[in-house]
Amino acid sequence: MRAVDIIIKKRDGLELSREEIEFFIRGMVSGEIPDYQVAAWAMAVMLRGMTEQETTDLTLAMAYSGEVLDLSQIVPVAVDKHSTGGVGDKTTLVVEPTVAACGLPVGKMSGRGLGFSGGTIDKMESIRGFRATLSVEEFLFNLKTYGIVLSAQTANLAPADGILYALRDVTGTVPSIPLIASSIMSKKIAAGAQAIVLDVKVGKGAFMRTLDEARRLAELMVAIGKLSGRRVIALLSDMNQPLGRAVGNALEVKEAIRTLHGDGPADFIEHCLVVASYMLVLGGKAKDLDQARQMAEEAIQERRAWEKFRTLVKAQGGDVEQVDHPELLPQAKYIETVKSPKSGYLSQVDAQRVGETALFLGAGRAKKGDPIDHAVGIEVLRKVGDFVALGEPLFVIHANHSDHVAVAGEQLLTACQWSDQPVKPLPLFYGVVGDLPVEEEKS
Amino acid sequence: MRAVDIIIKKRDGLELSREEIEFFIRGMVSGEIPDYQVAAWAMAVMLRGMTEQETTDLTLAMAYSGEVLDLSQIVPVAVDKHSTGGVGDKTTLVVEPTVAACGLPVGKMSGRGLGFSGGTIDKMESIRGFRATLSVEEFLFNLKTYGIVLSAQTANLAPADGILYALRDVTGTVPSIPLIASSIMSKKIAAGAQAIVLDVKVGKGAFMRTLDEARRLAELMVAIGKLSGRRVIALLSDMNQPLGRAVGNALEVKEAIRTLHGDGPADFIEHCLVVASYMLVLGGKAKDLDQARQMAEEAIQERRAWEKFRTLVKAQGGDVEQVDHPELLPQAKYIETVKSPKSGYLSQVDAQRVGETALFLGAGRAKKGDPIDHAVGIEVLRKVGDFVALGEPLFVIHANHSDHVAVAGEQLLTACQWSDQPVKPLPLFYGVVGDLPVEEEKS
Repeated sequence: MRAVDIIIKKRDGLELSREEIEFFIRGMVSGEIPDYQVAAWAMAVMLRGMTEQETTDLTLAMAYSGEVLDLSQIVPVAVDKHSTGGVGDKTTLVVEPTVAACGLPVGKMSGRGLGFSGGTIDKMESIRGFRATLSVEEFLFNLKTYGIVLSAQTANLAPADGILYALRDVTGTVPSIPLIASSIMSKKIAAGAQAIVLDVKVGKGAFMRTLDEARRLAELMVAIGKLSGRRVIALLSDMNQPLGRAVGNALEVKEAIRTLHGDGPADFIEHCLVVASYMLVLGGKAKDLDQARQMAEEAIQERRAWEKFRTLVKAQGGDVEQVDHPELLPQAKYIETVKSPKSGYLSQVDAQRVGETALFLGAGRAKKGDPIDHAVGIEVLRKVGDFVALGEPLFVIHANHSDHVAVAGEQLLTACQWSDQPVKPLPLFYGVVGDLPVEEEKS
Repeated sequence: MRAVDIIIKKRDGLELSREEIEFFIRGMVSGEIPDYQVAAWAMAVMLRGMTEQETTDLTLAMAYSGEVLDLSQIVPVAVDKHSTGGVGDKTTLVVEPTVAACGLPVGKMSGRGLGFSGGTIDKMESIRGFRATLSVEEFLFNLKTYGIVLSAQTANLAPADGILYALRDVTGTVPSIPLIASSIMSKKIAAGAQAIVLDVKVGKGAFMRTLDEARRLAELMVAIGKLSGRRVIALLSDMNQPLGRAVGNALEVKEAIRTLHGDGPADFIEHCLVVASYMLVLGGKAKDLDQARQMAEEAIQERRAWEKFRTLVKAQGGDVEQVDHPELLPQAKYIETVKSPKSGYLSQVDAQRVGETALFLGAGRAKKGDPIDHAVGIEVLRKVGDFVALGEPLFVIHANHSDHVAVAGEQLLTACQWSDQPVKPLPLFYGVVGDLPVEEEKS
């Protein structure tokens, strides 16, 4: 087998065999296939596409390019969740403890943020002392002992994905749906997931701008799940406007804490309950979504979810004092309200614009390795569909440089549009792809 | 400007600007743009194509990536020819001395063969002592002094083409029409050509298998000529069956020598006269093709073309004795005739199969740097359309290993097809792309 023949086959739009894909990925990881051949192949995949079977084969080849965790001794069904990334998306911070509090242990590997979209690990690192980089042994120990663990990805999981992603980033091959799908799914499978709830974001602040694209990605990942023997459900959720109110690391932790005390923004609570419900059903803890939702609601009402969150923080060295008293979390120096310059129904609160403003304030990183400021960010006070009167507060800016405030304020106003006519609120979800397991009838 | 943005623009099917193309080629040559980005870009060009303007910009950027010869002090119009490569194509060996003998100096840079298609330089190196690697100074000196020079490409001409070609070869991006066109044209322009006769081969033994593809390549190169201020004519010529009779280095030199003595195969003589005529008109030596053809025919009849060939050999250190007495050129040990296994009209003499057999005998190289055997090869005695009776000779094999003979014989017979019905001979040319200069009327 020669790498160039595999490239040519894909260039000509033909379907690669599992052997060819495994040969290519193995050669890429060992260095026998040089990066220029991988780059040409990635562009051919980008422009010619891949079938569901090819994408599954690619996913498994990448997943098995390094260590693959086996969680079967610890959890009956290892359930994971993954969000394709958005603005204000602190879902994991609420959902993971909620599900764990319902008796389904959850061990999650998560990423850091890049660009205007935040990362769960960065958010948790707002908490003094929280240690996100765990060894595989620590990960497994914590999952078994506490039923909850949240770690940055360990280096040796799906190394092929790391190599391929770095190349895609500089060769214009990031937006390939099969490459995105296999990147996500390979990491989840390597991390031991047997069932996965995917939260595919759609809209202005998401990687997938159109519902059509998002649905294609969701369908492909669900198909990979079927072909690889994993249960996968994909939710299509809105990211035209930010999720919840808080955007920025410590601000989002505070919002998660409030939510775990039953006091979160309505859209965010609803989003978390839906994701948690699907996880509980896939994990075999609830027979259907109704039962699952009731369990999740009770876990929050009874503060069991909150206790799990404290356990998580404590187990990974975080300062529990800070989460018990969130006012001790990093605070920005300048806190300024941005008021509405006119009256009307909000018809747009552009999530990307809000995310970019948070990035400008220092909440995110423009490139890998940049430092971030955990204190800064934005509170988004109003949602699309709300009527706002002239002079009413729209945003609260949390900045650490006085000259950032005015710039951020102007930028945030360009995120908004107003209408004289009533505007329908944006839906939280646009649909669900994939089937829940059918309950077996008792005989 | 960033390389990745240029890749993305081409990936999305947009037209690159001259500045973007120059930036990319400059970065490639300097090493600032790494080969994996070049590879991804080449695949995007392969699958998305390029406009005539982009291809011209690419051609000029590659031509000016190194030294560009200026022949204007030596020749009134520097005319070059280029063949896209075929089996038995020793045209340069006859055309260059013929045109030079008509008073139009010709300095030509030529390539070595790869795969089943031979290279002019390899053929000339059948002559003992012939030195093909000249410095630029020697090249210019010989052109001025003798009116004829034939050299392997000097290293510093169009270095961008060398880098890009090496990458294309291993990334499945060789067959891109714009990349082929710019590769050919950049080398010709760097070698100082102001007018170019392109011999675009079509058929089983050519890189372009269909007339449609060949015409697209020809039209693109003619368009590059127009946009870059060079006169370009492209002939579409047959390569379904080998050109002339001889295939193999010394055998082809012998056939060229016979042709320069007025005794060549009819198809090859005609091919050479047509190519030479176009060169003479483009070079301003003849007012039209009729006049040019008469000049070329006379140059051969009067042996002036032959004398020029001797001058060429002598000037570059070749043994003139060997060309005066071609039986002194390398001779193979085993010379065997292959006879027709049936009677019928020949409907196919597959040029690729013949070329591959010559390669098998040692006449060519499977990969760069392989040694070649100048003595071996094949004489192709019959053409498509000929009636051959059972037992009549079809081929003569010249081999240096006794066990090659039987294998080559069987392989050659698979190149042939016979028909009970009369078969039309193959045309020599399928068309001409581009316009000859219009003669200015005298006032």
